[in-house]
Amino acid sequence: MSDFKKELNSLGKIVEQELAKLLPQKDEFPPKLHEAMHYSTFSGGKRIRPIMVMKAAELFGMPYEKVIPTACGIEMIHTYSLIHDDLPVMDNDDFRRGKPTCHKVYGEALALLTGDALLTHAFATIAKNSKIEGICPNAVIDVIEKISLAAGANGMIGGQTVDISSSGKDIDKDTLFYISRHKTGALISISLWSGARLAGASNKDLERIKAFGENIGLVFQIVDDILDEKGDEKTIGKPIGSDTKNMKNTFFHLYGYDGCMKLVAQLSSEAKELISKYKNNDFFMELTDFLVNRSY
Amino acid sequence: MSDFKKELNSLGKIVEQELAKLLPQKDEFPPKLHEAMHYSTFSGGKRIRPIMVMKAAELFGMPYEKVIPTACGIEMIHTYSLIHDDLPVMDNDDFRRGKPTCHKVYGEALALLTGDALLTHAFATIAKNSKIEGICPNAVIDVIEKISLAAGANGMIGGQTVDISSSGKDIDKDTLFYISRHKTGALISISLWSGARLAGASNKDLERIKAFGENIGLVFQIVDDILDEKGDEKTIGKPIGSDTKNMKNTFFHLYGYDGCMKLVAQLSSEAKELISKYKNNDFFMELTDFLVNRSY
Repeated sequence: MSDFKKELNSLGKIVEQELAKLLPQKDEFPPKLHEAMHYSTFSGGKRIRPIMVMKAAELFGMPYEKVIPTACGIEMIHTYSLIHDDLPVMDNDDFRRGKPTCHKVYGEALALLTGDALLTHAFATIAKNSKIEGICPNAVIDVIEKISLAAGANGMIGGQTVDISSSGKDIDKDTLFYISRHKTGALISISLWSGARLAGASNKDLERIKAFGENIGLVFQIVDDILDEKGDEKTIGKPIGSDTKNMKNTFFHLYGYDGCMKLVAQLSSEAKELISKYKNNDFFMELTDFLVNRSY
Repeated sequence: MSDFKKELNSLGKIVEQELAKLLPQKDEFPPKLHEAMHYSTFSGGKRIRPIMVMKAAELFGMPYEKVIPTACGIEMIHTYSLIHDDLPVMDNDDFRRGKPTCHKVYGEALALLTGDALLTHAFATIAKNSKIEGICPNAVIDVIEKISLAAGANGMIGGQTVDISSSGKDIDKDTLFYISRHKTGALISISLWSGARLAGASNKDLERIKAFGENIGLVFQIVDDILDEKGDEKTIGKPIGSDTKNMKNTFFHLYGYDGCMKLVAQLSSEAKELISKYKNNDFFMELTDFLVNRSY
């Protein structure tokens, strides 16, 4: 295993240990709700967003330990968004990462409330970051405001709204970019911004790290679309673009394999350019390559 | 109209004007989502929670104008909770305050996202309170943390979880109190706490105003249960305790009319005692009487 992957794994484990402390405990009342919050939070996942918060803080000279509440709060927001997206009125998915989705285990009503509870608890968790020495209260407030906006109606929820309402329809490239930038990109990019803001980065550096996040957010989504297609062909052998519900709303459908690879090359090159001026940028260079070359 | 009711109306109008500014605008992209956020936010309501934030700030010497972002953020949380509670998987209500519920107008998927968006935007809105002169950033962070906890798994969502899972079952008095304290009481009580905290109230005063809120929160719920029964009898003449879905889980069912009135008298008297030591407590004394005597 490469050093980069070892670091990803090791930071991912730290995130999970901290999440277990920062969530309300599993046996608190009412028990089913807390159990469901833990079930969905600990159902796997690469913990890429919290790791980005932590490594962005490090890039600007702050030890990653100091931004863990914010990192974990963002993972709670990510988890809530998956629970709500999987509900029957949304994408209606029975499995995620090979495990039954929250509503398949706990029922739809409780899954809805579990998502609500994780989203709500995220902000109490991020607020706790102000209690860590060396963290400026105004930075915590900025981070709360920006995360709320990135996850909200003009961010992640806006992207999900357009995605849902485009289901089964032909969409144009602008709409596809809107969906990807908002549904996936906004939270990735604000993760990096938040770590940097807590570490005291300048406005110029904040802009740059955010732009880096926007680029790799798109890379992440385009590669996801490619993997979905390849996965489909390999595992069940059905023709590309057959019956998958949102098949038309993918980069693969609108750009084809070669077009996607060209986009990925351009976006990842821009991302590396943005990050090249910083010392100790190894993690972010390798992260970019990892997102380009990943096979899962 | 009494001076108290005039003040309620006039503050309610101010809250609505400010909500219209603090929400993302109705014509922002994606339009249906923003339209739905406005539809549910401006579907009536007494705006009692934001008014409590404002009057609690005044009680401790701060002009109410300074706590408007927090007041409006709490109203957004209240509105999201109504949208999600009305969904078919929860209470399945078609009307609220005489108007079709969010999912009846916009569909279930968009109603779910609209609730998510209001809950999310609440925290960006509260964070904005730090930009107002004379407000201490640490107070804003405390308020964000406490509101998140009061609205979360150990607060409002916990209450709703137990309420939903008790539907159609016999519950005991402890469970009924748990539901009421959490589902209704937690947000009312934290509204008062938040206004007082932003105004710089002492820990002792914060405890007292919170206890006042807990008492009037229970009064609010018990009177609600009585009105539900009376309303039923008057308007459709069906026997008490017949087919209303959660009929058994009410104070009226477990305590009867006389028992309820006794509880209301005791709780409101304790509330007034708690608030009696403050100068300029007229609003809170009259609010308590209003909650006891209201007929709507």
